[in-house]
Amino acid sequence: MRVEVINTGTEILLGNVVNSHLAFFAKELFPIGLRIERQVTVPDGTAIRDALSEALERAEVIFVTGGLGPTTDDVTREISAELLDLPMHESAEVLQAIAERFARRGIVMTERVKRQAQVPVGATVLANACGTAPGLYLKTDALHLFLLPGPPRELKPMFRESVLPILKTIAPQKPTFACRSFRVVGIGESNVEALVGEEILAIEGIELGYCARPGEVDVRCIGTPEMLDRAERIVLSKLGDQIAALDESSLEETVVRELTARGKKLAVAESCTGGFVAHRITNVPGASAVFLAGFVTYADEAKTRELGVPADLIAQHGAVSAEVARAMAAGAMEKSDAHFALSTTGIAGPDGGTEAKPVGTVFIALASRGNDVQVQQHKFPTDRENFKWLASQAALDLLRRSIAW
Amino acid sequence: MRVEVINTGTEILLGNVVNSHLAFFAKELFPIGLRIERQVTVPDGTAIRDALSEALERAEVIFVTGGLGPTTDDVTREISAELLDLPMHESAEVLQAIAERFARRGIVMTERVKRQAQVPVGATVLANACGTAPGLYLKTDALHLFLLPGPPRELKPMFRESVLPILKTIAPQKPTFACRSFRVVGIGESNVEALVGEEILAIEGIELGYCARPGEVDVRCIGTPEMLDRAERIVLSKLGDQIAALDESSLEETVVRELTARGKKLAVAESCTGGFVAHRITNVPGASAVFLAGFVTYADEAKTRELGVPADLIAQHGAVSAEVARAMAAGAMEKSDAHFALSTTGIAGPDGGTEAKPVGTVFIALASRGNDVQVQQHKFPTDRENFKWLASQAALDLLRRSIAW
Repeated sequence: MRVEVINTGTEILLGNVVNSHLAFFAKELFPIGLRIERQVTVPDGTAIRDALSEALERAEVIFVTGGLGPTTDDVTREISAELLDLPMHESAEVLQAIAERFARRGIVMTERVKRQAQVPVGATVLANACGTAPGLYLKTDALHLFLLPGPPRELKPMFRESVLPILKTIAPQKPTFACRSFRVVGIGESNVEALVGEEILAIEGIELGYCARPGEVDVRCIGTPEMLDRAERIVLSKLGDQIAALDESSLEETVVRELTARGKKLAVAESCTGGFVAHRITNVPGASAVFLAGFVTYADEAKTRELGVPADLIAQHGAVSAEVARAMAAGAMEKSDAHFALSTTGIAGPDGGTEAKPVGTVFIALASRGNDVQVQQHKFPTDRENFKWLASQAALDLLRRSIAW
Repeated sequence: MRVEVINTGTEILLGNVVNSHLAFFAKELFPIGLRIERQVTVPDGTAIRDALSEALERAEVIFVTGGLGPTTDDVTREISAELLDLPMHESAEVLQAIAERFARRGIVMTERVKRQAQVPVGATVLANACGTAPGLYLKTDALHLFLLPGPPRELKPMFRESVLPILKTIAPQKPTFACRSFRVVGIGESNVEALVGEEILAIEGIELGYCARPGEVDVRCIGTPEMLDRAERIVLSKLGDQIAALDESSLEETVVRELTARGKKLAVAESCTGGFVAHRITNVPGASAVFLAGFVTYADEAKTRELGVPADLIAQHGAVSAEVARAMAAGAMEKSDAHFALSTTGIAGPDGGTEAKPVGTVFIALASRGNDVQVQQHKFPTDRENFKWLASQAALDLLRRSIAW
């Protein structure tokens, strides 16, 4: 089955937004045996007509994103209906869902919003749990056309809850090949390849790929379950505890799961990561069972007042030092009565670096009950957001490796 | 001049890599008066033939990325030459550059690598400072075709050093149209359009679009400076302090800028947002000048211990209440000696909701010196990450509106 994706959005073509839909679709489709053959981006408005009519000539499954909103440049519904020769009608069901959504939020519904209740006759409405515009599924003998909202926060849950179940009924029976990813943290892509590449490729028929992101590498294998089991054994024996997950779980998910399983509590004391470690942990549903408190002690006085870091320790070694990282972790542990306390202190930049401690320098400490405080130094000379990401990766990975103690 | 982009790369269609080229091109092209009308992604290999021959029928400027490497599925050079009816020859200049690069790195050059020295006759070679495959510029009467390497690290410097100078000679000398975005927070897209849409569209020749994300809407106008000034006056008079920025500044950037300008300091006390407000603020370079401390008081005891929220206040009203939000903000203010202190307490879900306080309920408070604590209640019944985002938007927007007091 040929699959194509059409993304509408002037903001994508102006470079104001990066198109993240394609990767999302691809990752969701592969496990059910579907691969995307072509993706097109067109501006808002009528440019979708040409793109969609071309795709209709080639593809059996088409996903269109965007253009379902209430404004005048949202024309995906109308043009799709026109090309498939379907009349439009107002869906009472959709109108009610929109009205209820507005009522729940205590907002007055404008006339304009009602446009979103116009649907092509025969379309299946896909509920939007996170917004007003519903998705639509249009089916003909040879075609499955999905019209989906542009905002990723609306599209993703809709795709998983409504689109995937439909696709599973039409996709190739059972894909004989599966995809398994192993998430590796703390070593680079070329080292990962040097350790496992040749041995995995010796498994006949396996497809091997790497996906490197800052601070982590996914080793991706595609093959039969038997091939994948062999690859997993190789990965486990060669990479050991560099493997953060035998799937694509994030470090924060792994950490929350492991802490929950052991009934352990966590606190964090952040300087340079500025709340990002706490944010990542509290993104995980159920984090409240393990996460007690975070201290974002950005200013030196806050480190002293909130965490009891002696002012003369800061004066002597600087706020960015192994000693202060150690004292922050110990202070957070004592204040919160947690089992583990993580701390970060560093120089995110762009300013604030010195010759001895350039931008990118970071110290990470982990206090754990009954053990000495561990301290690590890293250098991540990069931009500010990437620095925060890499520092949070290093901190969470230090915790991950220590939880099992 | 119609501009199109063709990205080749199976890894993009498998979702292993997000296509960042498009946004890069768009941002580089707009200032010289060029806009991308269409972008297509196709797999490695011969799929580029159809995409390129279609683009040749429509566009005057075409950028192709990828497929210039040494392996057998790198066929961009050959297919471009074939479609333009140009013979290939080995370029001594390119071969020498590749040989020198290998020699510098002390690597033996394989036969395979020499494929990259094959260029269509008449092509202008674009030097690759960061890799082996050169870019190519093919020009006919009505067409400017640029073949560029896939890796962003090679493409970006080549684009700036070699492609832009060529484009400047062929692009409309001085772009008469500029783009201006107004960021609106706190009201939805359809209400924004109802307030300003008709009046802006009455400006002859202006292009108007909206880009809605959860909790904010960009009103994007494209036109001459005079048109944009008129649009700005309309936006200002109709949307007033709903406008968070007269450009694409994020709320956190606006807040840090305004606090810095006034020499005011900020603290935050977060429960449900779990560090995300602090994270957003500390993403802004220079945040350390205004941000003193964050308290991520996730557990009830942390609210009492760190912020002095009376335990019986929590027992009486619940941790998610206007009273506790107020006490958290006041406590953070007192503890940190800031001018402003923001607090959040709510139910992010998926669990923890009650009939009286369902998942999505959030209270936000702002303490500011010399004023009463302000408290707002919102309902954001959505998934966990979206909830945190919307709650942080509401909190930062409350702060933004109050800074000028």
